[in-house]
Amino acid sequence: MTTAAQVFQALGDATRRDMMERLTDTALSVSALAAPYDMTLTAVGQHLAILEAAGLIKTEKIGRVRSCAINPAGLEVLEQWARARRPLWQRRLDRLGDMLDEDDA
Amino acid sequence: MTTAAQVFQALGDATRRDMMERLTDTALSVSALAAPYDMTLTAVGQHLAILEAAGLIKTEKIGRVRSCAINPAGLEVLEQWARARRPLWQRRLDRLGDMLDEDDA
Repeated sequence: MTTAAQVFQALGDATRRDMMERLTDTALSVSALAAPYDMTLTAVGQHLAILEAAGLIKTEKIGRVRSCAINPAGLEVLEQWARARRPLWQRRLDRLGDMLDEDDA
Repeated sequence: MTTAAQVFQALGDATRRDMMERLTDTALSVSALAAPYDMTLTAVGQHLAILEAAGLIKTEKIGRVRSCAINPAGLEVLEQWARARRPLWQRRLDRLGDMLDEDDA
């Protein structure tokens, strides 16, 4: 289970946020993802492990290449945390909108 | 201007996330907010300054009491960052929903 604490700790680091931004709309191999950073592959692997444990990316081995892509689960934890902190009247408005959407359906 | 970097750095800390959670749906004075932590008022003030600079809280002095409340601006930066990282097809679906909402109005 991904927790908000894991997600925020993972994204508190500028390199890991940059990795997430570079993975937007595209999967990348670990070596392509690592290329711009002045960092060992081991260090890159540690960053990826933290992002993966937080539910922010998925990695998959295809043949001899490990590919990385965004995992929406961690993003969802982030959005829910932010939404739950919004003022009560805004949250009520959101729920009303959801109810009207359901009525339409 | 609040940036995603400021917001994530502010929320990478467990005490500051706890402060945000305690401010959900209620404004608190600095001393009420500080009470549960084993921390000097100066240290609490530093945490609050970081949250305020990131656009996550607002503080206001009323008479002799400084009151703290959630500022939705920082939450909005967080939600936008998360939404922008979601897969393209999900973002397209969001935009379609927004367009249909506008048509209704």
